[in-house]
Amino acid sequence: MARNKHPEETVRLILDVSFRLFVEKGYEHTSIQGIIDNLGGLSKGAIYHHFKSKEEILLAVTDRITAESNQMLAVIRDRLDLSGKEKLKTIFRESINRPVQNDIFTVAPDFHNNAKLLFSLLHDTIDNAAPNYILPIIQQGISDGSIETDYPEQFAELILLVANVWMNPMIFDSSEEESYRKFMLFRQMLQGFGLDIIDDEMLERLQELASIYQKNK
Amino acid sequence: MARNKHPEETVRLILDVSFRLFVEKGYEHTSIQGIIDNLGGLSKGAIYHHFKSKEEILLAVTDRITAESNQMLAVIRDRLDLSGKEKLKTIFRESINRPVQNDIFTVAPDFHNNAKLLFSLLHDTIDNAAPNYILPIIQQGISDGSIETDYPEQFAELILLVANVWMNPMIFDSSEEESYRKFMLFRQMLQGFGLDIIDDEMLERLQELASIYQKNK
Repeated sequence: MARNKHPEETVRLILDVSFRLFVEKGYEHTSIQGIIDNLGGLSKGAIYHHFKSKEEILLAVTDRITAESNQMLAVIRDRLDLSGKEKLKTIFRESINRPVQNDIFTVAPDFHNNAKLLFSLLHDTIDNAAPNYILPIIQQGISDGSIETDYPEQFAELILLVANVWMNPMIFDSSEEESYRKFMLFRQMLQGFGLDIIDDEMLERLQELASIYQKNK
Repeated sequence: MARNKHPEETVRLILDVSFRLFVEKGYEHTSIQGIIDNLGGLSKGAIYHHFKSKEEILLAVTDRITAESNQMLAVIRDRLDLSGKEKLKTIFRESINRPVQNDIFTVAPDFHNNAKLLFSLLHDTIDNAAPNYILPIIQQGISDGSIETDYPEQFAELILLVANVWMNPMIFDSSEEESYRKFMLFRQMLQGFGLDIIDDEMLERLQELASIYQKNK
């Protein structure tokens, strides 16, 4: 392939190929050279023009997945046919059911050795996802009487930190059994706020993801 | 001072002096040379024999504070006169009332630039403090009927992660107002588990700590 004249297409190609290799071989076992070999003639210089390291590629891959997730969150947030509580339930179900989750849990980057990735996840959770997507839903839920709290900003942060970080088997290396028990406790926590929104289907799907992670880590 | 023949005394001296300087001048504004200048004649070689960097000294200072905290937790855990619920309440009160907290919040290391410190805190919370100190108390609370959950291991982790990490103004840079609102939401979360253990005195103390941090950061 000749050098691409459209840099955004080059970047997309690099991210597509890298993510596929991360899923197939694992992040640790993928090299920059291995990525170049799969880029159909793109030069080493071209890839280094966009990314200084494999870690930068991983961060960009993660950012792209986050952006797609945020689009999904925005669609649910803006629906007119659901109460705040129903929106929260829909967000949890849709989030864990996304097919890309299987790939993410297969790649399973080791957050313990990758502080930038953990900080990037914490930053997106607190500074973006919680205030922009979860908070408006909780505020709606308080108005329509389906969610009980006087501290919507803090509740939005707490829910997402628990769901995205503590219940993330990639960060805390939970077994299937531990993932199940964490989700059950999360359910009890939400019930304390009047939110009975975790069902058995979600519990099964979360165990499935934990199982994919455990097999590939 | 001549070179100390007892290495553990040398280490203690280095940690005492370093912690005092961190509190007085801030971690960022303290240099290894500044620490040496206050060690009464201890050589540069002697300090580098024990610590390779200022960051290593900070981690050792943090470990020592954690060890002292764990001693306090063990004493409360092993008391025979309190229910599980009363022990949890006592632990929260004693933890935030420790005078060393004022120093810790004055030093206020920037966790965003210090991944090792964040991982060290996460590791101690999940692998040590939760299973060894909080879990036995929750199990006692389940037995004596003062705590309601079927997932004591996960509840122990969740409580400590929320209290030590999310409510830590050094990690999430919360203002006094935000700290207050986080603590109020934490109170609501605990009430959902049948635990009405946060009182106004604790709320005032936490705001005081957040204020110390905001003044010194």
